[in-house]
Amino acid sequence: MPSKKTADLTTSDTNKQQYYIGIDGGGSKCKAVLMDDNNNILGTGISGPGNPLHGFEQATNSITESAQLALADAGLKDLPLSELFAGVGLAGVNLPILFDEMNSWQHPFKQMFLATDLLIACLGAHQGEDGAVMITGTGSCGFSYVDKKALIVGAHGFPHGDKASGAWFGLQAAKQVLLSLDGLVEQTLMTEKLLSLTQCPNDVALVEAIANKPATFYAKFANLVFDAAEEGDDIAKDIINEGCAYIATVAKKLNQQHPKRMSMIGGLTTRLVKWLPTEITDQLSEPLSPPEVGAVLFAKQHL
Amino acid sequence: MPSKKTADLTTSDTNKQQYYIGIDGGGSKCKAVLMDDNNNILGTGISGPGNPLHGFEQATNSITESAQLALADAGLKDLPLSELFAGVGLAGVNLPILFDEMNSWQHPFKQMFLATDLLIACLGAHQGEDGAVMITGTGSCGFSYVDKKALIVGAHGFPHGDKASGAWFGLQAAKQVLLSLDGLVEQTLMTEKLLSLTQCPNDVALVEAIANKPATFYAKFANLVFDAAEEGDDIAKDIINEGCAYIATVAKKLNQQHPKRMSMIGGLTTRLVKWLPTEITDQLSEPLSPPEVGAVLFAKQHL
Repeated sequence: MPSKKTADLTTSDTNKQQYYIGIDGGGSKCKAVLMDDNNNILGTGISGPGNPLHGFEQATNSITESAQLALADAGLKDLPLSELFAGVGLAGVNLPILFDEMNSWQHPFKQMFLATDLLIACLGAHQGEDGAVMITGTGSCGFSYVDKKALIVGAHGFPHGDKASGAWFGLQAAKQVLLSLDGLVEQTLMTEKLLSLTQCPNDVALVEAIANKPATFYAKFANLVFDAAEEGDDIAKDIINEGCAYIATVAKKLNQQHPKRMSMIGGLTTRLVKWLPTEITDQLSEPLSPPEVGAVLFAKQHL
Repeated sequence: MPSKKTADLTTSDTNKQQYYIGIDGGGSKCKAVLMDDNNNILGTGISGPGNPLHGFEQATNSITESAQLALADAGLKDLPLSELFAGVGLAGVNLPILFDEMNSWQHPFKQMFLATDLLIACLGAHQGEDGAVMITGTGSCGFSYVDKKALIVGAHGFPHGDKASGAWFGLQAAKQVLLSLDGLVEQTLMTEKLLSLTQCPNDVALVEAIANKPATFYAKFANLVFDAAEEGDDIAKDIINEGCAYIATVAKKLNQQHPKRMSMIGGLTTRLVKWLPTEITDQLSEPLSPPEVGAVLFAKQHL
């Protein structure tokens, strides 16, 4: 690798190796991948939040840092960022105000191609081809990209949207546990699990613990809903069935665009797929590459 | 009134007139009422937020200010606060940490009796007698007070609780409008009403407008749900029916304590009662006095 680097940095012929950095900037971390012309992965890097919803400076610092880490990982830390074509996919830039802000960034790259996190996830999952993805992590949404037309379903945020996301499952758990502790609904296995997880002795303590908390906080409760349901808890099963019914509706909507492939991605996928109806799971294909690779594919499509 | 004031301030006999200040401290304003031994209302005052959830200093400043305004309104502005017995009912002090903080306040009154906003609302509604209240304003909850035993149902906050509150109705409206704009549910009259109210041209703008907003923001959407339902909108009707079913469950729970009277209070009451089943509305009695009067009754009960 060092000899290759030296050759690349000193050669100026037209066949010079090009480098591409792919960025996937989310609410908790920013991932970077360094790739070459042949889509070989040369190095990767991870830094802090890369979502401009958390602030422009934080996002741009995270992008730069993750890119430098990917270069270092590839043994190319002397290669300047200005040599890189960057594909940058960011959560939040579906909002025009944030897209414009990030797109006017005086970035350090040779060229920067900005996309939503949804588009790069979709391009990654289907190796740059048309397709659809349903994402269920802390948030949720559906996205398809067919004949250069993008369709977004959801991606509205918490608590007004993001049904069937980790935050949504966690919020439903908190709601049902509080109703159950008030004696308004049946007892549920989620009560003990939630009080234990939050280290709360009772409902008053629980209300204090969960007041004014963001989506990431509620998302930590999602697993206990699935745990309780798998132990036979009816209230937990009802929550999961409501979430799955929503996902089925999203899939149906995305199918109107006739995507060739559909994948489900995000941290909640493995728990959710067991509960989805077979007419949905039969349609799902494994995602082929992660979103940061999709970001590189996006950049290459626009060069 | 001035001559009475002078007499009171200079007389030191045991029959001296006592003054009582009743405080109802909520999230948006703090109301005070000045009353005498015979429960005559001498003056009233209103100041800013009196809920310690918004900070100790803000709450104590609002309480003091509203009390001074009530004194001035009564033509008794030279009467020191240290002459007043105070009944203070505050939202938030059902949480032990906030109760302890407010109760250790070096207050300016002769004596202070601290209660939840729920208890003073209930005492006010039933003129100091046992009874129950269902409160639906920005938040929601049920409360009964029978044989000195209090039962709280709900009062958990937003977005994890407060079902059938203004904030809850507003959130349901936002959710259904976003689902409808995504084509996942039928069209609803609420869409045009909500986009108009928030001055948003589309769903992307709406998502920007409602991101990270508090309960008071969502509560402003509650009326449009009732407007749409009254114009025949099925999705709006479903929301209201779900809220009313919850209120019926709360009433049933409160009835287990056999309260002699039950009242419904809060800003959403007049719109909600039209949709409640008659077995609930048949039980409801008009509230007799406002919460701040209930706060005075609470203080007198403890003297």
